[in-house]
Amino acid sequence: MNPAQRLAALRAQLAAQGVDGFLVPRSDEFLGEYVPPSGERLAWLTGFTGSAGLAVVLAGRAAIFTDGRYTTQVAQQTDGALWERRHLIEQPAPDWLREAAPGVRMGYDPWLHSEAALARYTGVTLVPLAHNPIDAVWPDRPAPPMAPARIHGAEYAGQGSAEKREAAAAALRAAGEDMAVLADPHSIAWLLNIRGGDLGHTPLALGFALLGSDASVQLFMDGRKLDAGLRTHLGNAVSVAERAALPGVLAGLAGRKLRLDADATPAWFARSLREAGATIVTGDDPCRLPRAQKNATEQQGARNAHKRDAVAMARFLAWFAAEAPSGALSEIAAADQLLAFRREVPLFQAESFPAISGAGENGAIVHYRATPESNRPIHPDECFLLDSGGQYLDGTTDITRTLFTGPGPAPATLRERYTRVLQGHIALGTARFPRGVAGPHLDALARRPLWDLGLDYDHGTGHGVGSFLSVHEGPVAFSRAAKVVALAPGMILSNEPGYYLPGAYGIRIENLLLVQEAATRPDQQKPFLDFETLTLAPYAQALIEPALLTAAERAWIDAYHARVLAEIGPLCDPATAAWLARECRPLALPGAEC
Amino acid sequence: MNPAQRLAALRAQLAAQGVDGFLVPRSDEFLGEYVPPSGERLAWLTGFTGSAGLAVVLAGRAAIFTDGRYTTQVAQQTDGALWERRHLIEQPAPDWLREAAPGVRMGYDPWLHSEAALARYTGVTLVPLAHNPIDAVWPDRPAPPMAPARIHGAEYAGQGSAEKREAAAAALRAAGEDMAVLADPHSIAWLLNIRGGDLGHTPLALGFALLGSDASVQLFMDGRKLDAGLRTHLGNAVSVAERAALPGVLAGLAGRKLRLDADATPAWFARSLREAGATIVTGDDPCRLPRAQKNATEQQGARNAHKRDAVAMARFLAWFAAEAPSGALSEIAAADQLLAFRREVPLFQAESFPAISGAGENGAIVHYRATPESNRPIHPDECFLLDSGGQYLDGTTDITRTLFTGPGPAPATLRERYTRVLQGHIALGTARFPRGVAGPHLDALARRPLWDLGLDYDHGTGHGVGSFLSVHEGPVAFSRAAKVVALAPGMILSNEPGYYLPGAYGIRIENLLLVQEAATRPDQQKPFLDFETLTLAPYAQALIEPALLTAAERAWIDAYHARVLAEIGPLCDPATAAWLARECRPLALPGAEC
Repeated sequence: MNPAQRLAALRAQLAAQGVDGFLVPRSDEFLGEYVPPSGERLAWLTGFTGSAGLAVVLAGRAAIFTDGRYTTQVAQQTDGALWERRHLIEQPAPDWLREAAPGVRMGYDPWLHSEAALARYTGVTLVPLAHNPIDAVWPDRPAPPMAPARIHGAEYAGQGSAEKREAAAAALRAAGEDMAVLADPHSIAWLLNIRGGDLGHTPLALGFALLGSDASVQLFMDGRKLDAGLRTHLGNAVSVAERAALPGVLAGLAGRKLRLDADATPAWFARSLREAGATIVTGDDPCRLPRAQKNATEQQGARNAHKRDAVAMARFLAWFAAEAPSGALSEIAAADQLLAFRREVPLFQAESFPAISGAGENGAIVHYRATPESNRPIHPDECFLLDSGGQYLDGTTDITRTLFTGPGPAPATLRERYTRVLQGHIALGTARFPRGVAGPHLDALARRPLWDLGLDYDHGTGHGVGSFLSVHEGPVAFSRAAKVVALAPGMILSNEPGYYLPGAYGIRIENLLLVQEAATRPDQQKPFLDFETLTLAPYAQALIEPALLTAAERAWIDAYHARVLAEIGPLCDPATAAWLARECRPLALPGAEC
Repeated sequence: MNPAQRLAALRAQLAAQGVDGFLVPRSDEFLGEYVPPSGERLAWLTGFTGSAGLAVVLAGRAAIFTDGRYTTQVAQQTDGALWERRHLIEQPAPDWLREAAPGVRMGYDPWLHSEAALARYTGVTLVPLAHNPIDAVWPDRPAPPMAPARIHGAEYAGQGSAEKREAAAAALRAAGEDMAVLADPHSIAWLLNIRGGDLGHTPLALGFALLGSDASVQLFMDGRKLDAGLRTHLGNAVSVAERAALPGVLAGLAGRKLRLDADATPAWFARSLREAGATIVTGDDPCRLPRAQKNATEQQGARNAHKRDAVAMARFLAWFAAEAPSGALSEIAAADQLLAFRREVPLFQAESFPAISGAGENGAIVHYRATPESNRPIHPDECFLLDSGGQYLDGTTDITRTLFTGPGPAPATLRERYTRVLQGHIALGTARFPRGVAGPHLDALARRPLWDLGLDYDHGTGHGVGSFLSVHEGPVAFSRAAKVVALAPGMILSNEPGYYLPGAYGIRIENLLLVQEAATRPDQQKPFLDFETLTLAPYAQALIEPALLTAAERAWIDAYHARVLAEIGPLCDPATAAWLARECRPLALPGAEC
């Protein structure tokens, strides 16, 4: 089937189901960032493979909505004769639909949208469809992933599932709630200390669950994912049933009070619970905040994972420094080489996301992904940005380094911009702050050195990171758009300011930070928090302009490099260790100052 | 009547009106910061004269709730045998009441609470009372203020009322609303270009108004405040009626759609409108945001007012420098002298708030007010904090300077703390930022130098300031607790970080800042905003430790002092000018650096 045939088949199906149109989100029923092949309905229908988008199909018109990151990609991947391209933010789908087809009967799959998302569609009649019309016309739709779930051992989890369940249940009891709907597979993985392989980059076993105020859990997951050992691990307080049993179970909850996260739960749940006569209390997923606050075992696991990951990074950086000046490398070749080094690292499972490997102008595309079509050589004397990470059994890593290939010196302007980004990265990484401060309150610290020059970057400064879970984990983030959630010890966030000159180059510098109790200072009036830097890889000496740095910033960089050399050097082969020693040398003291 | 008799009389009145208790807020029906004598019900009943508090009276118990600022004062002013003292934040009144008297019939005056505030009282039955029971037992209750309203001339307002009304009405029409309730006298003053004298520090003519989507206004204000000239100024589109006419007017609004700010409007309005069958749309006061963005005339007025205010400040600072070392001054004498100098300034109307004049340990009390009882001599060689401001026809000022009396040198630790506060003050005052950034996002810039030492201050970094209106004006503020409202050109905010060592001293340094379009920098990718400093008075050379400052910070201070001398020196008498020249000298270059 070609794109035109797919769209025609869908429209015929819509007519058969008696609706005027249909909403096709990018997400599947788990409303997450990554989607298995069986859930790639938007890609199948439109050809667009980006990580965020939505299609609105009407009998006579169809539009696809994407954000600024994907303007070029959507134009390349979709047929302009079939699809109007619209900007997700500047012209939201609900507004477009209201104008294009006021009052139409708009079909949607209640599994694929949250009630909060659906609430934005006013001026049309929303009709939930029992059967997804795309599935009906997608002949070779892949089967849902069926990877076996695995026990996430106590040596990595640090806290038993029973203890976690009891704490979460206590929160429900305190709120007078009988149950919580756990629609987020990350919460289920954390709560039950299980991981899986249903997605490429996040170790999830996809499923749903109900947590009871008695600390029991009803897990709705394909039984084929759960072997005997895992069922033993789950224990008697966790019952397992097929997804097909979910409607029946909800139907039996009349009069019960259930907590449900309206932003992160498929509308199907609230609809079913209301029909059943249950009371819905909108509230946070009770696992989200405890999950974000890593315990001592998870914190140590993160340190260990980052140390091992740093060895692969050091090998890559040394290799790159030797190979790049010749111009023989390509974006994909570089990313593949780093992955090859990571594969040799103990406990490595997979990349934590598809590496962003951007040379020159491609580095300026914030969410660039090198494809066989876009792959380009990495030239001598240019800027190269590599943002990548690993999933290890004991932790998740995410690191960005921006390099200059040489052999020549980096241009002064490039060095100045890199140094400004580095100053922001240091300003945030060295922050001390009292309890109550949240990510949105610290974002400006990382931007200040760029703002002073009238420069900025159009993305958040950092995101939460899971413990052998998603590399993008809520609820905390260094972003003005993030919810105000106080930072707390054990939280892990990325610190990744950048600067992008479209058509020329991109700069981003990223470490992961662990929130911790700060050492007490004399005259301190209340407890403070600060960050432990988890990521251990040198910055690009060739791109640093020491004269632009304060004495304190230079001292911090030298101390960080000394730490990298002391902790990682001994773990490296002699050649890598020798290169690391050179790259970790103290900064040259600028002639001009004072 | 003594306090016990007053409380007994109130309880008898409550029994007569058939309720078990009564809520006594500090605010009057205008829910503002300042209250005329006729509205000082909390003070009359309890003796507590602080600016924030609430009393909860039951038949057998009574409690007064205040925040940490007033812990000492409430203990001094109220009778512990009559009143339990509680912390407004740590044990909110609704929680205390729920525990103390679950299910009681709790009376309240619907004019004195917003619906948002009342919504917090759960577990009791709230009963609106038609007649305030305190007024019924307060024999010598003062009459409401009756100061004449005055025209706020075009030379100060810069924009005609008709134009303002039309713009606000257009916003209502765009939202499909028929009317907006204007319950905030500041909005009425701004919208109609009138000022008044009903309050001591804010030039308001107290009243209510309804703004129609046709740009007409119904003003509900005692006619005795409005002479013929003012009525002509208001024009035909503004009708005037007595407060007594308000119920009848609202009763006639069946089927109309009215915007009402639930946080800032007496519950009486929403109750009356619902009874009338009107539709209530909760939304922002349509005047609040335009009022915050001062127009070109108001901006120039602010500059002029600050220049003239700076002459009074310079005279005061020179006088203080001469008198203080002898130890002959007192807190009240110092504040009175500054007020005397301000009274000689053209267009001066009144203090913009009661001056905070705190010597030594009194300076550590953030909202200290010197009274005849608390007034204390200002000793030699100690720290003195003076926070004050003026209301001028063309603008409102608010300035804090912290001084060292001498004759000896200031202790090193004090100089270090003052310098840290100054560094935060400079960091915020010199910030450049893109549109979309709000006050809560910049607050940390001012705290960073203190946070680095484990120090902080328990108040916001700055508040909005009106144009010959309230010195505390929403919606913007440099505070993590403030709403996220993007900063915009024309907004005026205070920049006042501090440090307080209880029992020893307080440091606060405050300038007012005007948000403006920033000068474009090369390579700038989007428009930026920055601040113009309005306040022009030297910092305390005796308290600055140059060695702790960066070269850029020293350069900024020297440039600011040079500007103060150049702009204010010529306006001063020779003696003051000579002192100003000395105090504005360049900082001594620290021996120790590089």
